[in-house]
Amino acid sequence: MQQYFIKKNASKIGFIIQIEDKDTFNHMFSVMRLKEGDEVQLVFNEEKLALAKVVENQNVQILEYLERDTELPVSVTIAVGFPKGDKLDFLAQKVTELGADKLWAFPADWSVTKLDGKKIAKRQERLSKICLGAAEQSKRLVIPEVKLFENKANFLGELKNFDHVLVAYEESAKEGENSTFVQALQEAKKGQKILIIFGPEGGISPSEIDRLVGLRAKLIGLGPRIMRAETAPLYALSSISFYLELLNKN
Amino acid sequence: MQQYFIKKNASKIGFIIQIEDKDTFNHMFSVMRLKEGDEVQLVFNEEKLALAKVVENQNVQILEYLERDTELPVSVTIAVGFPKGDKLDFLAQKVTELGADKLWAFPADWSVTKLDGKKIAKRQERLSKICLGAAEQSKRLVIPEVKLFENKANFLGELKNFDHVLVAYEESAKEGENSTFVQALQEAKKGQKILIIFGPEGGISPSEIDRLVGLRAKLIGLGPRIMRAETAPLYALSSISFYLELLNKN
Repeated sequence: MQQYFIKKNASKIGFIIQIEDKDTFNHMFSVMRLKEGDEVQLVFNEEKLALAKVVENQNVQILEYLERDTELPVSVTIAVGFPKGDKLDFLAQKVTELGADKLWAFPADWSVTKLDGKKIAKRQERLSKICLGAAEQSKRLVIPEVKLFENKANFLGELKNFDHVLVAYEESAKEGENSTFVQALQEAKKGQKILIIFGPEGGISPSEIDRLVGLRAKLIGLGPRIMRAETAPLYALSSISFYLELLNKN
Repeated sequence: MQQYFIKKNASKIGFIIQIEDKDTFNHMFSVMRLKEGDEVQLVFNEEKLALAKVVENQNVQILEYLERDTELPVSVTIAVGFPKGDKLDFLAQKVTELGADKLWAFPADWSVTKLDGKKIAKRQERLSKICLGAAEQSKRLVIPEVKLFENKANFLGELKNFDHVLVAYEESAKEGENSTFVQALQEAKKGQKILIIFGPEGGISPSEIDRLVGLRAKLIGLGPRIMRAETAPLYALSSISFYLELLNKN
């Protein structure tokens, strides 16, 4: 069944709702061609999930509230140095499918791509749409927040708000450093915020590493194979899900 | 340092080798513009890794053999129902980065894409090249084997050669079935062969599920979020690496 995010607070059962968001309305009635009596799932602001049916005048009526637990037990923010080309589009879709809470990007020393204010706003909007679509498809209750930092200092200023800050560092991987990531997951408690930082294609510069370590970030290796910049975040998120949701640790 | 697969058996230290493979030769001397004295890493048939230097007449001389452990402790074959578009290209690159031993694809009941003999041969060749490039980049000692089955029966005939056969099944995931994948990894011993089967976009048909279960495949769920057909194999491989290489189980 199709799922839509409704940017409204949850109403009582039986309540009839008008679909105000144009994209959602078009998808429901032009793409999916929903008719009276057809059922959909709606997610309200409070991450509440409802079963609803289409009623007259292309409105929807709430039938019942459903329980579904599709969110990771910790909040994971993936932050990447601006990568080349459309890799952020790719990441927006994939990190959403894999349960990220936020996708951030920042201008790293070795980022080839430069983004300024106007481009950033446009890009952010596009990425947010990709996250919305992916969140609906993967039946999540949260649409990951996308934030592109024009200024690295602003990004670094956010680090203090996280319970755990990890940096995927190729040199750590080369030295066979595999235990810090595991340790961080062992220490992570339900509801805590984890930030994992990834470099652009060229990696993270030594001075950035020093700066991040100074801000109490821990360097982690993600196994013995060299992964592309856009693959490593998927490895990290999959591992977190496997550890916390499948192995059922913490 | 650049790494190349040399389709030859390893020779003694000091031995001078002619690069016969045209693509490798071009990459070394036209793309990378290697000069006399430059060093490269060569991987020989036996998964042996050597440091070598360029000598006169665009030949290379073996300097020493190196130790490197970039391969998963188990052999994982990823098999997918023919997916749409260029998703197999994507999978070839990503499963190589994530340590797969083989990438297979087969005509599933719900595969929209149809591939016949001639197309299969061409496609297989292209996918093999992608795997080669990705294996060099991720510093692996193995190039994943690509095999596209024209006939589903031939694919099913291969199942008996694996120690563990798993099927990623959305219905299992929906029912919160998370333990079978973990159990299989707990039981997997070093060097064993694991086959993980994934459906095309539409999923695996009920009659295919029955057939696979009859051939002793186990149905596994991969967490609570619905993943796209091309994302689930990356989740599985990342989890296997995390469990066997980072958590250091088995």
